[in-house]
Parts: sequence; C-alpha cells; structure tokens
Amino acid sequence: MSNLYRFGISLDKDLIDRFDNHIRLKDYNNRSEAIRDLIRDELVRKQWQAGDEVAGAITMVYDHHKRELANKLMDIQHDYGDTIISTQHIHLDHHNCLEIIAVKGSAKNVQHLANKLRSQRNVNHVVVNMSTTGKILT
Amino acid sequence: MSNLYRFGISLDKDLIDRFDNHIRLKDYNNRSEAIRDLIRDELVRKQWQAGDEVAGAITMVYDHHKRELANKLMDIQHDYGDTIISTQHIHLDHHNCLEIIAVKGSAKNVQHLANKLRSQRNVNHVVVNMSTTGKILT
Amino acid sequence: MSNLYRFGISLDKDLIDRFDNHIRLKDYNNRSEAIRDLIRDELVRKQWQAGDEVAGAITMVYDHHKRELANKLMDIQHDYGDTIISTQHIHLDHHNCLEIIAVKGSAKNVQHLANKLRSQRNVNHVVVNMSTTGKILT
Amino acid sequence: MSNLYRFGISLDKDLIDRFDNHIRLKDYNNRSEAIRDLIRDELVRKQWQAGDEVAGAITMVYDHHKRELANKLMDIQHDYGDTIISTQHIHLDHHNCLEIIAVKGSAKNVQHLANKLRSQRNVNHVVVNMSTTGKILT
Repeated sequence: MSNLYRFGISLDKDLIDRFDNHIRLKDYNNRSEAIRDLIRDELVRKQWQAGDEVAGAITMVYDHHKRELANKLMDIQHDYGDTIISTQHIHLDHHNCLEIIAVKGSAKNVQHLANKLRSQRNVNHVVVNMSTTGKILT
Repeated sequence: MSNLYRFGISLDKDLIDRFDNHIRLKDYNNRSEAIRDLIRDELVRKQWQAGDEVAGAITMVYDHHKRELANKLMDIQHDYGDTIISTQHIHLDHHNCLEIIAVKGSAKNVQHLANKLRSQRNVNHVVVNMSTTGKILT
Repeated sequence: MSNLYRFGISLDKDLIDRFDNHIRLKDYNNRSEAIRDLIRDELVRKQWQAGDEVAGAITMVYDHHKRELANKLMDIQHDYGDTIISTQHIHLDHHNCLEIIAVKGSAKNVQHLANKLRSQRNVNHVVVNMSTTGKILT
Repeated sequence: MSNLYRFGISLDKDLIDRFDNHIRLKDYNNRSEAIRDLIRDELVRKQWQAGDEVAGAITMVYDHHKRELANKLMDIQHDYGDTIISTQHIHLDHHNCLEIIAVKGSAKNVQHLANKLRSQRNVNHVVVNMSTTGKILT
C-alpha cells in the first residue's frame, strides 16, 4: 500500500509561507500531508462527476411519529439494497430522528436514492456526503 | 408539530412549468414539498454559516492496517465526546475503512473535529455532511 | 414576458416564520420573490450540470508584467471566439490584473476555456461564474 | 514578485500517477502548476470566509424592459461606489441583459451588494464570483 514517491515542486516563497501558516491552523504536521489532501479532494470530486464507483453517506432528518413514513423509508432502502451498506439511527429529540445511511455504488444510484428519500413528505432534510471507496487514494 | 399554513405565491407561468418538469424528475409529488425543501436547504446553510447548533455526519476513509492510527483516531474522538453521538464502521476492502461519525453540537466544534481527523497521516479522505437538529425544520 | 400565475402552497407555520425572518435580512420584499430565486438557482444549477447553453463570466487574476502571458491569453481567447462575448480589464495594482470575460455557450466549452486559462503559468486564479442566458428564468 | 522556492514532497506513487493523469486532461504542463492552483483555491476560499479584502465579479441577468428596474439598479450600484470598479453590459436577447460588475472590497460588502441586487423584482439571477486582489497569490 505504501509506495512513497518523492519529488520536488517550485512555488513562490510568499505563497508557500501563507500556505504553511494556513495548514498550521488546520492541524497539519507538514506540507506533504496538506498537499496530499488537496489532491485527494480534487480526485474525489472528479469521481463523483464522472459517475464512478463511490462510497459515502446519506444523512436524513425526519419525524418518526409519522409511522407510515418509517415504513416507507424502509421500503425505499430495501429497493436500494445493492447500494446501502448499513444504517445508523439517532434519536435527536422527541420528534426528530437523524438517520445516516452508509452507501457504496455508482454515483448515479446514490443520487437517485437521495432524491427518493428527499421527496418523501415529512423527511425534513437530506444531504449526500461524497467520499470514496479509497481505491483512488492509496 | 404540524401546523400547516397555506398561502399564495405568484410566479411566471413559464418558470413554474419548468420547475414542475424538474421536480417530477426528482420524484416529488407536488410543488409545496419541493419548495419546502429549497427553503429548508437555505435555512440549514445559514445555520452552519452562523455557527448555530447543528447535527450531521463526518465521513472518513482510512487504512486500518496502520494500527497506531486507529488508536489515535479513537483518542481524538474521545476528546470530542460532547460532539460525537455514535460511530458506524464499514470495512470497504482489505485495507480501507469507511467510518461515519454522527455529530451534534456547534458548527465550529464539528469543523474542528473534522480538521483534526483530516490532518492525521493515513486518513485518506474526510468530508462533513451538514444537516440539522431538525428544530428549524418543523 | 410576464404571464404571472398564482397558486397556493402549504408549509408549516414555524418554517415559514423562520423563512420570513431570513429573507427580511436578505432585503426581499415578499415571499414570492424569495421563493422564485430559490427556484431559479435550482434550475440554473441543473442547466450547468446538464451541459445546456449557459451564460456567465470567467474571472481571472494574473500578473501582466509577464508579457508573453498577455499574448498567450489573447490567443486562447481568440480560439474561443464563439464562446466569448467581451472582456473587462481592471488594474488591481502595479502587478495584478483582474480580467472578467463574459461568456455564452455550452457549459462544456466554458469549462474548457476556464481550464485552458487556469493552466497557464502566472495566471494566479480563475473562477467560473455560472449564470444563464435568462431563457429559463422568464 | 517571483521568488521561486523549491522543496520536496512525498506522496504515494499511485496517487501521483492518478493526479498526473487528471491534470493532463486539464491542460496543465506540470505538477508544480497544478498543485499551486489547488493551494491558491484553498487560500482564496479562506479569504472569503474570513471576510478579508477580496476582488471578484457579480454577474446579474435581468429584463431591461422594466425601465424602473434599470434606474433602481443604477442607484444601488452608486450606493456601493467604493466596492464597484466598473460594469460590463451585454444584450443577451431582446429582453435579457447580462451585467457583470467588477468588485473589490470587504467580502461582506460584496455579499451585501449581491443580496441587494438579487432581491429586486425582475432581476432574474445573481451570482458572486469569488476571486482575489492577487496579493495572497504572488
């Protein structure tokens, strides 16, 4: 897995000074790690745009008192059994649930599933966390 | 919780025709629900910008073979015990783990925690899923 | 152009109260206008994703002291003559220029042009402002 | 202005191979330039979040047949005379105008100006192009 490759890059001194200052505030130990993360973010964005195989999470807030809703959401999740890995459920308060669905599959399927959930009555908020299967990040 | 309020809005006919067409493709049953979701997204964005209390998920991909990493990530999570609700762990392949941390707290604390995790060596990707405790979404 | 269509929508009272408060801070006079803008933003985002005909601006910051750069940037702009409408040039300081290129064409061509400009040495920053020809916004 | 500084970074071989492939498609000549742009984007994002002095463009689409609108937009722009550098105006079609306002000032003022314009009736779309005065980019 680790096949480190060392190479040199040239940047203006002022730019790299500002970057050093910025990454210190973000808790990085060194430039290589900070630059690596910028590169990974760029490649993950591209994966989602290209519709590649991705991984991530769909986060959903809803009111569990609407009993038919819970059943309906379960049905939808079963229709996307190939895309969903597992689900984590948190009781935010008496009414609101936070449900986080771990997903892996084509970017398109993940977006379809999110659309399906978002369009349900009494589902209050849905967001997609775009991450990666890790294969591009080695 | 449900205290429905009905009111009228005026839009150009062409605009609403295009919107109707768009939301049909996104699986909405009617305009009220689609407009409600646009409004909620706007309010949730504002909550995160304002640093209010929020809920959401941090998604992280890392290589669990680096044993010290797992311990380090555990330590960091314990430092943010007030912000973290629970964690879901998925084995993506022989090397890569997908860990999804359900969070609730100030937007600032959630971002700090994400920065802390992202800056660790061998943590390959970190994203924050910005959702809400649901209180603004009634 | 104006063919106003009036219809009713139903939202939770608390949600609409929060929205009213939010749009007052953003200088809106009434809900219809604020909701119309949320709808337009959604449709414009979709246009850019779908690769439709779009309009917008490419903003670029560069150091004009690199004379070959100015010529090179001119050459590139001529290659995209069908996409570029006109250019506005501002002298930010002794070194830095802000150049804003008004564009109209396929989303893909606009992105290609932006990539081409961004990849030039001594072009310091390039962003694409995604707007619309207005046809969808009536 | 140019005070090039050379340093080494270490990345996994597979990651840098994927990055090389990606930047070739985006027309970059070499890694230093592509990495420099990722760093600049990060610093510009931070400038806007921190409310520093910024430069950029506000793009606006509106229907010029509404004569009072043109006057109103002019008045607003005069109120923000310190922030606005110049304006470029394009006739998209019989009805729609694309107006691009070059701006320089505090991020907050630029956002206020954009809100003010967006909230006008018959202004169809407003977006802010977040760039920089170039001082951080050397």
